[in-house]
Amino acid sequence: MTYTLILLRHGHSEWNAKNLFTGWVDVDLNDRGRTEAVRGGELLVENHILPDVLYTSRLKRAINTANLALEAADRGWIDVKRDWRLNERHYGALQGKDKAQTLAEFGEEQFMEWRRSYDVAPPALSDDSEFSQAHDPRYAGLGEDLPRTECLKDVLTRLLPYWESDIKEDLKAGKTVLVTAHGNSLRALVKHLDGISDDAIAGVNIPTGIPLVYELDENFAPITVGGKYLDPEAAAASIQAVANQGKK
Amino acid sequence: MTYTLILLRHGHSEWNAKNLFTGWVDVDLNDRGRTEAVRGGELLVENHILPDVLYTSRLKRAINTANLALEAADRGWIDVKRDWRLNERHYGALQGKDKAQTLAEFGEEQFMEWRRSYDVAPPALSDDSEFSQAHDPRYAGLGEDLPRTECLKDVLTRLLPYWESDIKEDLKAGKTVLVTAHGNSLRALVKHLDGISDDAIAGVNIPTGIPLVYELDENFAPITVGGKYLDPEAAAASIQAVANQGKK
Repeated sequence: MTYTLILLRHGHSEWNAKNLFTGWVDVDLNDRGRTEAVRGGELLVENHILPDVLYTSRLKRAINTANLALEAADRGWIDVKRDWRLNERHYGALQGKDKAQTLAEFGEEQFMEWRRSYDVAPPALSDDSEFSQAHDPRYAGLGEDLPRTECLKDVLTRLLPYWESDIKEDLKAGKTVLVTAHGNSLRALVKHLDGISDDAIAGVNIPTGIPLVYELDENFAPITVGGKYLDPEAAAASIQAVANQGKK
Repeated sequence: MTYTLILLRHGHSEWNAKNLFTGWVDVDLNDRGRTEAVRGGELLVENHILPDVLYTSRLKRAINTANLALEAADRGWIDVKRDWRLNERHYGALQGKDKAQTLAEFGEEQFMEWRRSYDVAPPALSDDSEFSQAHDPRYAGLGEDLPRTECLKDVLTRLLPYWESDIKEDLKAGKTVLVTAHGNSLRALVKHLDGISDDAIAGVNIPTGIPLVYELDENFAPITVGGKYLDPEAAAASIQAVANQGKK
């Protein structure tokens, strides 16, 4: 008995193109992102890996990625669960800021620490900011749990209880689970599944729009470490491109 | 304390244009239907009536209506529950048949009895038919509950337990509930809410794409019988058009 878990990172959004920190700001997909989402659904069909239940964050770039991918796979009818615990990492006071300006303002060391350290969060976002979620009705029930900034460790801390209480339960019931979420919420989950160290996770990038399939054993350990991308060549090219960026 | 229930019938589908009986066949919206769905979402925003939870059938014309309407209302992030009990009436052996040909073949009396009687179902659909759902994975758990044909009474019989167990519970919790479904599943619910007789329900038609809002008292009785359409003029025109069809 193995369990099948599919991870899908949403495609490009309007703020990718503008080079802004997004985090919990509810930015939509752009045309490129919509195309990626449809392709993700087609890859599920071509590989005969069809989800029985969908998990998404509360953010439209993940929700619309799932809607488009599932429609392409003719699986729009499956059960849906949305939860803030799958949201992107909250980027604190950086949300809405231009990445190049932030780099120039704070220097490369501080910039990279905020982006890639496991346990250092950016400064908190003020509730008065136009990029705050403090008055967003979708998070009204969160109370003290609502983040004002997060590091990757914070993401894992809020994600794990939901993984245990909900996602694992559906896997145990024999369902193929699709999680459509974000770069950092999926990195947090992959860190947990593959047992990646706090340092090594900095080097892990998950490409957008390419389903990443984990077969898990009865202890929820991956049969193949790192899972399997449904388009391995495109995934490798995307990961290499990110690695090359870091060398510039 | 009153409860707010929004009913939304999906817009025109590909088979409306072809004049075929649809029932449980999973036909998509056409462009007109997609436009209607977006307009439905805009009407929710203009009237400041925003749902907290969505209920849909398992059929894509209702699911996609909901997706489009909620996206237009910036409420794509709300919780979603899908259930076959909200599906359109199963049209039995008529599914996939041309309406005009069926009328010519069986005569007006039989034709109208199948379409409008409360408790006479068309002949059952064979499980071998290309229009059968007997081998559809989305209904794999239904077993003996899977219909092969239904009259409106059958629809109410399968819908009411779900209304009681799920939809009413969300209303009791103070949530504004959106039900995006079909002509006959919504007629069945309206019959129940407004206490319409078995004979009178034949004369009730629900226009497509116009949200119908019921305020319900603590006993789930409508404050205003028949509810309130968010575009009353368009709803009246649509209902009159259907009434005129019957006079031809």
